[in-house]
Amino acid sequence: MNVLIYNEFRHEQDPGCAAGKIYPEGIHSAIAGFLRKEPDISVRTVTLDTVAEGITEEILKETDVLIWWGHMNHADVPDRVAELVQEAVLNGMGAVFLHSAHKSKPFMRLMGTSCSLIWRESDDLERVWVSAPYHPIAAGLDRFFEIPADETYGEPFGIPTPDETVLIGWFTGGEVFRSGCTWQRGWGKVFYFQPGHETYPIYYDPNVQTVIRNAVRWAKPERRTENCMDCPNPPKAHTGMSTV
Amino acid sequence: MNVLIYNEFRHEQDPGCAAGKIYPEGIHSAIAGFLRKEPDISVRTVTLDTVAEGITEEILKETDVLIWWGHMNHADVPDRVAELVQEAVLNGMGAVFLHSAHKSKPFMRLMGTSCSLIWRESDDLERVWVSAPYHPIAAGLDRFFEIPADETYGEPFGIPTPDETVLIGWFTGGEVFRSGCTWQRGWGKVFYFQPGHETYPIYYDPNVQTVIRNAVRWAKPERRTENCMDCPNPPKAHTGMSTV
Amino acid sequence: MNVLIYNEFRHEQDPGCAAGKIYPEGIHSAIAGFLRKEPDISVRTVTLDTVAEGITEEILKETDVLIWWGHMNHADVPDRVAELVQEAVLNGMGAVFLHSAHKSKPFMRLMGTSCSLIWRESDDLERVWVSAPYHPIAAGLDRFFEIPADETYGEPFGIPTPDETVLIGWFTGGEVFRSGCTWQRGWGKVFYFQPGHETYPIYYDPNVQTVIRNAVRWAKPERRTENCMDCPNPPKAHTGMSTV
Amino acid sequence: MNVLIYNEFRHEQDPGCAAGKIYPEGIHSAIAGFLRKEPDISVRTVTLDTVAEGITEEILKETDVLIWWGHMNHADVPDRVAELVQEAVLNGMGAVFLHSAHKSKPFMRLMGTSCSLIWRESDDLERVWVSAPYHPIAAGLDRFFEIPADETYGEPFGIPTPDETVLIGWFTGGEVFRSGCTWQRGWGKVFYFQPGHETYPIYYDPNVQTVIRNAVRWAKPERRTENCMDCPNPPKAHTGMSTV
Repeated sequence: MNVLIYNEFRHEQDPGCAAGKIYPEGIHSAIAGFLRKEPDISVRTVTLDTVAEGITEEILKETDVLIWWGHMNHADVPDRVAELVQEAVLNGMGAVFLHSAHKSKPFMRLMGTSCSLIWRESDDLERVWVSAPYHPIAAGLDRFFEIPADETYGEPFGIPTPDETVLIGWFTGGEVFRSGCTWQRGWGKVFYFQPGHETYPIYYDPNVQTVIRNAVRWAKPERRTENCMDCPNPPKAHTGMSTV
Repeated sequence: MNVLIYNEFRHEQDPGCAAGKIYPEGIHSAIAGFLRKEPDISVRTVTLDTVAEGITEEILKETDVLIWWGHMNHADVPDRVAELVQEAVLNGMGAVFLHSAHKSKPFMRLMGTSCSLIWRESDDLERVWVSAPYHPIAAGLDRFFEIPADETYGEPFGIPTPDETVLIGWFTGGEVFRSGCTWQRGWGKVFYFQPGHETYPIYYDPNVQTVIRNAVRWAKPERRTENCMDCPNPPKAHTGMSTV
Repeated sequence: MNVLIYNEFRHEQDPGCAAGKIYPEGIHSAIAGFLRKEPDISVRTVTLDTVAEGITEEILKETDVLIWWGHMNHADVPDRVAELVQEAVLNGMGAVFLHSAHKSKPFMRLMGTSCSLIWRESDDLERVWVSAPYHPIAAGLDRFFEIPADETYGEPFGIPTPDETVLIGWFTGGEVFRSGCTWQRGWGKVFYFQPGHETYPIYYDPNVQTVIRNAVRWAKPERRTENCMDCPNPPKAHTGMSTV
Repeated sequence: MNVLIYNEFRHEQDPGCAAGKIYPEGIHSAIAGFLRKEPDISVRTVTLDTVAEGITEEILKETDVLIWWGHMNHADVPDRVAELVQEAVLNGMGAVFLHSAHKSKPFMRLMGTSCSLIWRESDDLERVWVSAPYHPIAAGLDRFFEIPADETYGEPFGIPTPDETVLIGWFTGGEVFRSGCTWQRGWGKVFYFQPGHETYPIYYDPNVQTVIRNAVRWAKPERRTENCMDCPNPPKAHTGMSTV
C-alpha cells in the first residue's frame, strides 16, 4: 500500500524551536521511518514548501492513505489542494489527521464543523485510554498508554459525533479529550489522533507508532470509486433490469 | 421565533418554466405563507439577486432557523455567504435544506461529503414513509403520505450517516431515498427534506407543510454561542475552580 | 410531568454503611427533594422492597420519566419489572440511569451490551467536563464542574456508541469515563449519568442536580405510543390512501 | 473461519408449506451450500430440534460468525441459548440475522428495542438498493438487485439507529424498509438482512448469496475477548504503569 505523509515542516526548520532537535529531518521523516519498516507499506512525503506539486489529483489517486501534520500554516495550503484531498477521501482514500491538523483545511472540510478545542502548553503527562478495545486501531495496545509530555487538548472538541471514539485522553492538568476518533466520509475513512506537539519526541513512542500503523491499515480502502461528486441520471428502473 | 427563507427564485421568473405558474411569487413566498400562520413565527425572505445584502452576519444572528431552496445557481451564491451560514449553524442557528439544496454551498460545507444522488424527472408519484415516528419532525403525520408527482431522487445519497433518518421515500419508478435526515453540527441542528421539484405544487401540500413546520420548530435553538471557531487557551484547571 | 424514582434503598438502611448518614431518607428522597422544587414536576418514589407493586404497567403509563439507582441488588429486581420498564421506554417513557445502575436489568436490556466498566473506590476527585455544551442536558453548566469525592469509573465502558456523549469525567487517579451519554430507544430517550457513589453526598451537589433536572426535562416524551412490540399487517398501500 | 448456521427448520418439514419443496434440506443447508464453496469457510448447522446441544458456550467460542433464521418458534429457543449467543457476540463473535429473525431472542437482546415492523404477504417484487456502496457488505453488487418475489416488510422498523444502513428495500406494493443494517455490539459485529421468506427460493439468488457471503467475511472477528461481562477493579493507574 502507498502512504503519503504531508508535514508542514516549518517548526523543525526554525532554529528557535526545539522541534528541529527532536525531528532533525522533520516529523514526516520520523513517521515515514517506522512505517517503512512494514514490508507492504511504501511511503512518500511532501511538505508545505512543495505542497502544490506534491499533492495532485494523480498522486492522490495513487495514494491509499494520506497522513497530515500541520500547525501554524494551515492558511498557506492552497484551497485547491484541500479540495483535492477532500475529493480523494470521498472517492476512497484513507486519511489520518494528527494533532494540530484538527484545524487543517482538509480536516475541516471533511468535518463541516469548527474543529475547535481548548489547549494548554505545559508539559502535562497524558494518559491515553482505549475506549473501544475491539477496534482495529486499538490492536496491540494495553488498557492505556502514557505519553510523558504533550500539549494538552481539552473538550469541547467541535467535531461531528464520531462514528467511534477509540481513544480518550487524560491530562495531569485536569482535562479530557476524545483523542482517537473515526468517521466514514463518502467512500473514505478518516481518523483523527490527538497526540503530537512538535516539541516532544512523541512520534518515536512505540504506542503512538502502533496507533498510527493500525490507523493506516484500517483506513486503507478495499475499493475506490471516481467521480463521487457526480449526480447520475439513469433511466427508470424496471423489472429485470438490475444494473446501470 | 425568526425564520429566514432563502430561495434562488430564478425558475419562477423564467417564462419558459412551469414554476412561475405554480409559484407566482416564488417558492419562498409559498413557504412563508404557511409559516406566517403560526402566531409565534416571523418570516423574512431573501433571493439570489440580493443574497449578499440579505444574508449577513447580523441578520443570521437574528435568525433562529434558515430555510434554503436552490437548484441551478448554487455557484452564484458567494462563498462568503456560504461561510457565514455555516458559522451561524455552528453557533446555534437551525437550518432546513430543501430538495435540490443538497448541492448548495452551505449544505455541502456542513456535510463535508459529495451530497450526490441519482435523479430522474418523470412525474413519479412519491410515497414518503415515516421511519422515525417518535421524532418531533414526524408529529401529525400518518404512517406515510403521498406526493402525486415529484422529481425522483435515489440512493446512494452521498451524506454522512444521519443522526436520524426520519423519512424514507418510495417512487413509482422503483427508487428509494432517505428523504428526511437530521444532523447535529456544532450548536446547530440541520434537517434535509427531499421533496420539492419546482414544477409541482409540492409546497402547498399539507403534509409537506407539516414536515417543514415541525422541522423549523425542532431546529430552533434553545441556546446559542458565538465564536465557535475559536480555540480558547484557559489556564490549568485546579480543584475548586469550576469555571473559565 | 410525572417522575418516578426507583432506588434500591439497601445501603442507606445498613447501619455499617455511611450512606445512611448521608441519605437518611434514601437517595430517592434526596433526588425527589430537589425535583419537587420545580412547580411542574410531580415525584413518586419506589424502593426494592416494594418494587413489584410500585412499578406496574399502569404506573409506568402515568410516568413521564423514570430515574433508577441500584447497586448490589440488581438481581432482586423481578425480570417482569425490568421487562415492563423496557417496554415503557420503547413506548415513549424517558429513563435516567444513575451510577451503578449501569448494571441494572432495565439498562442492560435497553443497551443490549455488557455495560461493564472498570472501577476503584478511593475518594478520587472527579472533574466532569461538558463535551456537548449545546445539549439541553448541559444547560446551566460551566465548562466543567467538580465532585470532591466519588467512586472512580473508567473505560472501556461496554455500551453501544451513544447518540451523544454529553459529559466526560476525569479522575485524579488517572481514569476517564463517558459520564453522560444519551440514546434513543424506540419512542423513548435514555440518559446514563455516572456520578453517585452512595457514601458521598453527591446528589446534594448543585451541578449534579442541574444535570438530573435537565435530563428529566430532556427525556420527557412529547408523544407516546402503545403496543410498540406489535408487528401490524396493513393492506397494500395504494395511490390516494395515506393512512392506516 | 467457522460459520454456524441456526435455522428453525419447521416450515420446511411441514407438508402443508411450500418451504419444503424449495428447501428440501432446509434453509440452513441452502446457505451452507454456497458458503462451503469458499475454501476458507467451514460450516456447521443446527436446528431448533437440537438447539440446546448445538449451541453451547464451547461451540460458540469456536464460531467466528453465527447466522440465524427463525420465524414462528422464537419462543422455543431457550433463554439460556439466547443469552449465550448475546455474550458470544459481546465477546467478539459475528452475527448475521436473516428475515424474520428480527424477532428472534438473540437479535432482540442485542438491539434492546422492539424490532417491530409492518409486513404483508403478497408476492411483491423487491428491489434492494445499495445506500452504502463503499461498505464491504456491498462488494460485488450493482446499484440495486431484484428479488422477484418476497414477503414485504415496511417501516417503521423498531431498531436502534444502525451504525450503517447498507441496503434499502423497495416493494411493488409501496413500502420501503432498511433491509441491510449494521451495528457494533461490544466486540462483535451484527448485520440484519431482510430478504428471505420461506416460500420463495431467495437463498438461491446470486445477489442474496453475495450479501450473505460478504456479511460473513465482514463480521468475522479479528480479535476476541472473554469475560466481557466482568467489571475489573484494577489499582490506581500511576505514571510509568501502562498495563493491568
